[in-house]
Parts: sequence; C-alpha cells; structure tokens
Amino acid sequence: MTALDERDLVTSIPNLLVLTDPDVTEGYRQDRAKDPDAGRPSAVVRARSTDDVRAVLRWATAAGVPVVPRGAGSGLSGGATAVDGGIVLTTELMRGIEVDPVTRTAVVQPGLTNAEVKRAVAEHGLWYPPDPSSFEFCSIGGNAATNAGGLCCVKYGVTTDYILGLEVVLADGTVVRLGGPRLKDSAGLSLTKLFVGSEGTLGVITELTLRLLPAQPPASTVVASFSSVRDATEAVCNITRVMRPAMLEFMDHTAIAAVERHLKMGLDLGARAMLIAQSDAPGDRENEMAFIAQAFAHANATDVFVTDDPNEGEAFTAARRFAIPAVERLGDLLLEDVGVPLPALPALVDGIEAIAAQRDIVCAVIAHAGDGNTHPLIVHDPADPDQSRRAHLAFGEIMHLALKLGGTITGEHGVGRLKKAWLPDQLGPDVMELTRRIKRALDPQNILNPGAVL
Amino acid sequence: MTALDERDLVTSIPNLLVLTDPDVTEGYRQDRAKDPDAGRPSAVVRARSTDDVRAVLRWATAAGVPVVPRGAGSGLSGGATAVDGGIVLTTELMRGIEVDPVTRTAVVQPGLTNAEVKRAVAEHGLWYPPDPSSFEFCSIGGNAATNAGGLCCVKYGVTTDYILGLEVVLADGTVVRLGGPRLKDSAGLSLTKLFVGSEGTLGVITELTLRLLPAQPPASTVVASFSSVRDATEAVCNITRVMRPAMLEFMDHTAIAAVERHLKMGLDLGARAMLIAQSDAPGDRENEMAFIAQAFAHANATDVFVTDDPNEGEAFTAARRFAIPAVERLGDLLLEDVGVPLPALPALVDGIEAIAAQRDIVCAVIAHAGDGNTHPLIVHDPADPDQSRRAHLAFGEIMHLALKLGGTITGEHGVGRLKKAWLPDQLGPDVMELTRRIKRALDPQNILNPGAVL
Repeated sequence: MTALDERDLVTSIPNLLVLTDPDVTEGYRQDRAKDPDAGRPSAVVRARSTDDVRAVLRWATAAGVPVVPRGAGSGLSGGATAVDGGIVLTTELMRGIEVDPVTRTAVVQPGLTNAEVKRAVAEHGLWYPPDPSSFEFCSIGGNAATNAGGLCCVKYGVTTDYILGLEVVLADGTVVRLGGPRLKDSAGLSLTKLFVGSEGTLGVITELTLRLLPAQPPASTVVASFSSVRDATEAVCNITRVMRPAMLEFMDHTAIAAVERHLKMGLDLGARAMLIAQSDAPGDRENEMAFIAQAFAHANATDVFVTDDPNEGEAFTAARRFAIPAVERLGDLLLEDVGVPLPALPALVDGIEAIAAQRDIVCAVIAHAGDGNTHPLIVHDPADPDQSRRAHLAFGEIMHLALKLGGTITGEHGVGRLKKAWLPDQLGPDVMELTRRIKRALDPQNILNPGAVL
Repeated sequence: MTALDERDLVTSIPNLLVLTDPDVTEGYRQDRAKDPDAGRPSAVVRARSTDDVRAVLRWATAAGVPVVPRGAGSGLSGGATAVDGGIVLTTELMRGIEVDPVTRTAVVQPGLTNAEVKRAVAEHGLWYPPDPSSFEFCSIGGNAATNAGGLCCVKYGVTTDYILGLEVVLADGTVVRLGGPRLKDSAGLSLTKLFVGSEGTLGVITELTLRLLPAQPPASTVVASFSSVRDATEAVCNITRVMRPAMLEFMDHTAIAAVERHLKMGLDLGARAMLIAQSDAPGDRENEMAFIAQAFAHANATDVFVTDDPNEGEAFTAARRFAIPAVERLGDLLLEDVGVPLPALPALVDGIEAIAAQRDIVCAVIAHAGDGNTHPLIVHDPADPDQSRRAHLAFGEIMHLALKLGGTITGEHGVGRLKKAWLPDQLGPDVMELTRRIKRALDPQNILNPGAVL
C-alpha cells in the first residue's frame, strides 16, 4: 500500500481506527508462530464493529490491497502473519456477548478470549467446552478460524461442534448471517461449517452463535507414570475403546522435566511418560476412575495417583498446559500439531523419538493422547544454523511420518503459512484443486489472507 | 436422454447396472415426499462401487445429462425426485461397513440403512446416535446428504456431528477423500462438513467415516400429559435450560388420537399434549428423572408416568415414531419440518394451531421439542381441490411463521424441491448468491440434482 492508498483508506472511512505508526504495526507483523518471513503491513485496522470490517474489505477489494484478519495473534501456524503492504485487520476490540440460557447459546463477538466466553456463560450455569491450552489469551474468533481443539475434545469434540451460526464479512464486503441458535437446521448448504477452520481465507468472522452445555460437573483425576512410551500409548487405546474420559493427556520425559524444573510439584523425573486422565460423569465417576486406574496398572504404570480434589486435578492440568512455555525456555520452538488415528499413536510417538535422535535435536512430546493429536516441540537455537537446519528437517519429517500413518499435519492449530508446504501431501491434487475452486468462488481477487493455507 | 444417449451410457460402461424398463424406473421417480411434479428418468443406475459412480458422472458430464443421487428414497422434501430425461443414481447396493473399536469409528458405504449401521457397531459395544424416525429404512448416505436428525439430537447432536470423513465423487467424476478417522483435523477447508447437508447438489457421497460413541447406557423414561399445549412447551424450556435429557418429544392431541387408534396402548385421549423424556446418564438417571418429573408437575401435567423399564420406554418412543404413519392414514400429508429457537416454541405451536383453524384443516403436531424442531403434519384429500389448496396455503404459512420467530424452514429433512420456494425467505439474497457461487464452482454444468435446493 502506498502512502496515497493509505490516505485514501483513512479518508474513505474517517471513523476507522487506522494505525500506521511503525512502532505499532511492528507488533502486528507476527503471531505466536514468529514467522521470520513476516511482511510489513502498511496499516493495522482495529475494527470496532461489523460495519468497520465491511468498510475495510470494500476498500481493500476496490484498491486490490490484501487483508490479513487477526484475532489475538496467538496462532501457532502463522495464519495471521502480515503480508507486505497489506492491512492487518484485528477484531480484538469487538468484545460483546449475550447469553441465552433457554436455548443454551451465546452470541459473541470475535475479540473475546476463550476464557472470557467461558466465564460469561458460567454465570448462567453454562459451559463452553473447547479449551485450547492458550484459552486465557486466544480469541474466540481465532478459535473458530482454526477450528481449535484443546484438552476436552476427547469427550466433547472441537470448536466446529459448538458453532451454530456465524456472521461473516466476505472479501467484497458483503455481510452474511449463517445459521443461528438452532441445534438443527438443514436449510441450504452447511456454510457455517465451511467458514469454521477457513483461517481467514474466505471471510472475516464478526459474530458467532455458540452452542453451550450445562456446567461441567466436577472432575476426578488419575495421573500415572510409565517407564516406556509404548506402555503409555497402549494404555490410551485400551481406555478409549471402552469409554470416553473427559481428558486424556500425555507428556514425555523431556516435557515432564521442563515443567518440573519450573513448577517443582514433584513430577516423576525418572518416568519416560506420564498420562493425566479425568472423568466428569455425574454418579459414574468412581466406576470410570477405577477403570482408568486399572487400565494404567495393566499397562505397567509405575505409579498411579487418583484424586477427587478438583484443585489437585487442576494442578496437573495446569502442569500439562504449562509444557509449551516450559519447553520454550530451552530454546526457540518449532511447534508441531500432528495427529493420527489412535491405533497409530504408539508408532507416531516412537517415530518422533527416532527422528529426534537421528537429527540430534531435543524434541519434547506432549499430546491430547485420547484423540491421537500430538504436539512435538522441536527445540533449536537460531544462532546455531546447523542445529536450526536439522530442526527444520525434523519438522517436515514428523509431518510426513504422521501422513504415512494415516494422519494429519495439523489437528487443531491450522495450516497457516508454516505448514502449507505440506498440505498438498496430505490432501492430494484433487482436494487442493477443490479447495482452490472454493477460494476463487468466494475471493476471486485473493484479497483475504493471501499466502495462508494455499 | 434420447435412446441414442442411453445406448451410449450402456456401451460406455458395459458393467453398469442400468435399468430402463419403465416399470422399474417408475419406482424411482419419487421419494417419500411423493412430489406430484416428479419427472420421468431415462435410466436408473444402481451403483455397486465408487468406480460405478465415477463412470456415471463422467458420462453425464460429457453428455450434459442431469443426475439425481438417491439413497433409500425415504426423503421427505423431494430431494431425490427424478427429473425428466435424467439418470437416477442410487447407492442402495453399496453396503459395506468396517468398524474400528479403537478409534471408535466406522467406515461405511452409503447404501446401508441407519439401523444396519447401528446394529453393526453395536456388535462392538459402540453406538451411532443419529436416529431419524425412519431409521429402519433410511440410508446412511441420505442421512449425510440431508444432515438428518432424530430423537437423540437434543443431547447428542445431528448427523454432521458424527461425520469425520467422506469419499465424494464430484460432478465431473473426480473422486475426493476428505477427512478421516481423526477427531481433530484442521488441515485445509472443512470440506467434509460442506458436503454434509448438500442434498446431492455438490457431489455423490460414496463412503462415510463415522464417529461412534460407547454403547448408550439404558435409559429411563418419563411420560406426561398436559391439558394445554402452552404448559407442555413451557415445561420443555424449563428442562433444557438446566439439563440435557437424552430425548424430549412432543405430541399434540391429534397425533395422540391417531396413534392410539392403531396401537391401543392407553394414551390419554383427553390430553391436549404429551411429552416423552428420557435420561441415560449412568449413575445420575434418578436425579435427572426426578428433575424432569418435577418440571412436568410444575407445568401442570395432569399425569406423570416414570419407568426404568427399557421396554416400557421403547413402547412410548415407538408410539412417537409411529405418529407419521398413523396420521398418514387420515389422508395425504404435507409434512413440515420447521424449527425455532426454544423460547419461541410455545408461540410456534400456538401459531400452527391458529393457522390450521383459520384454514379449516387437520394438522397434527409432533416435535423434537427439546431442540425446537416440530413436524406439523397437514392432512388433506387430493380429491378435494379446495381442501388441498387450503392445505398448501397453510404449508407456506407455517414456514413463514417459523421464519418470523427466528426459525428455519427445515430442521432435519432438507430443502429438496418441496421447500425451495421458501429458502430465499430464510437465507436472504446474499446467502443465496453465496450458495450459488459454491454450486457453480463445484458443478458448473448443473449436472447434480438440478432443481433441488436452488
């Protein structure tokens, strides 16, 4: 965008919050993926309303200027990486929420954090399940854009399962309202679902109608240590074939050590793997906990700890959530999000260890084990070019391993820019072409988030 | 399709099961909606494989011949109504299934009935929840094409919530595989979800990967009679704001009388409305049943019956499922499928009664009350043109009433051909145009199910 264009934007839409000070725009170049190739945006627009978003997109379409939609900037795949000369359009100031306890739905604007949504609906005895580990600072709009997951998914599903309706602004500024507070609606194409997970490439989400559940009952927790990764992952499969725990998380020894170093909560530093499971079935928790504990014991757990105390349970959950920041202190991270069908989980985790050993790099593995979604955290020092090179090689090798095992390169973070080179390997040429056909139909000028996903 | 074209089809694909005998094709002109304007197909093709479907669509694209995909023909909106000179492509012979208990998924072909899928997965201790009342004879492919619902949705959601992957043949014969046995997958656009509910207008579903749950625990049942419809619908709202029953069904007095006439099970003929609720929460059924029974009593139920006997419960569920065939014996049906946000349910049911009275027609109302999805069953005698005219007027008025109340013209049956005149009133011009853009991108020649939905 030239200076003339920029004045044009400001003049055309005088009430818009347009920021062009390089000190400010610098903070919007990257998301949490820290893409070193991020561009320099000409302007950051802080939308306060759907009208603001519409105005920006109309202007951008007329001027042919790319727009990168952005929520809280907590994305881990570079889906909100700025492009040179483009506009970063943030929805962080759009923070309204209305809860309807009878329909058990909430109408929310995209700028609220996931945690703020959870808190607002909890006041009505309701619960919004999806819980990315970043829930305190990720935005609900970004959650929808990436079809975010979290720890609850093994029982409660992912973001798309909780989105009944959307307001979306299309590339040309047209505002469409899709779905609404109805659990069932078969009228026309499932457009709501198409925009969920589209990573800002098809439209900008300006409002969401969320499906809510009655408040989650208190959960009980079982934690176990294992002297082999294979024992732990096999325990996972033996549990999920019979029941649905409310949580079933995995940490390997590198992750355990990194967390313990900072939290000092007495995690078993001699263990090769740790599993944290929860049950929240009212009236049936004892049965479920006994079953899980037994499955852990059968899989040669070296230590099994069971607690009904929600605070103790939360301490272990928090430890698991703390794994990414803890490992991050060892160096820069290349953060994977590969998933496989559950029977392949042992082979995936074994294979990741082998890749890390072969490339001589540190790689901690944490996983939403109950749904086969792992986060290998590859540590590297950018000041060591050879190590960085080996880390990047491992990054691709791990995605290829997941694909070889029938899996996905991203379970919940999205493709963004960092993983798009591997997307064709997963989808194949025909699905890529189908994707491009839809992209062209909805955004023929490629205004929206160009360079992401495709 | 001319005779030459037909020979061309048979010659091009010699192994195809092509049926052109008018005695046979006549049986494929209509689905259960009995559209009187159904066309006469030139041929019916019974696909036995994805290759068959691909061959038909390649041929049809080259020849410019329309193709109407068809499952079991149990659709209630005319989504599988034949078009003149076109091909009806049925998937009824594609009946494979493979169940994987560890991932709790099943890979199924579209021709199996919903009940056959349920039975096959039950052998592995698993459960496929969606349960249209037609589950004994509707196909799983058709369920996906319409995003079918059922009685379980109030707690367990609709078909799209259980579809993790699809194999789809596009209009030009390209076969794409979307998603797979992974609960989480954010790689690329949510194409799987786009095809669910697309009613055969974007592609032909040739394989589905279904997400399964552990077997449903035994349910307890509460049945209550009410002397006012308003009392019953308000009881519904008071229950759903606090908990999720496993079922919450409604029948009005016309439906009760029609069912009782045939089943003679002692239903309360003096009641204006009846509710049937179930709880299946292991360990918590007693609490839930007590809460529901109390909510019914507070809403002035004239009679509340509680049973833990699954057979007694199933008898009431079967009575509710029997309502459509029972009312059908009173005359031809115009079958509605309107839904509203729950707080509008009392106004919707009141308004339907008022429309029926004003148009002087018989209209029974049954409803998946817990999610606001009602099935007004408008009875008419086609030999009485004035009555039929009034019935058709009421049919449209009920859809407009639902829209005025923030609802949908179809909760779970789809738009098909019978409801497409009302779709623009629900979606508006911008969403209609967005729908057309996607249709054109995927099926530029309008080969697939022309005249349905759009």
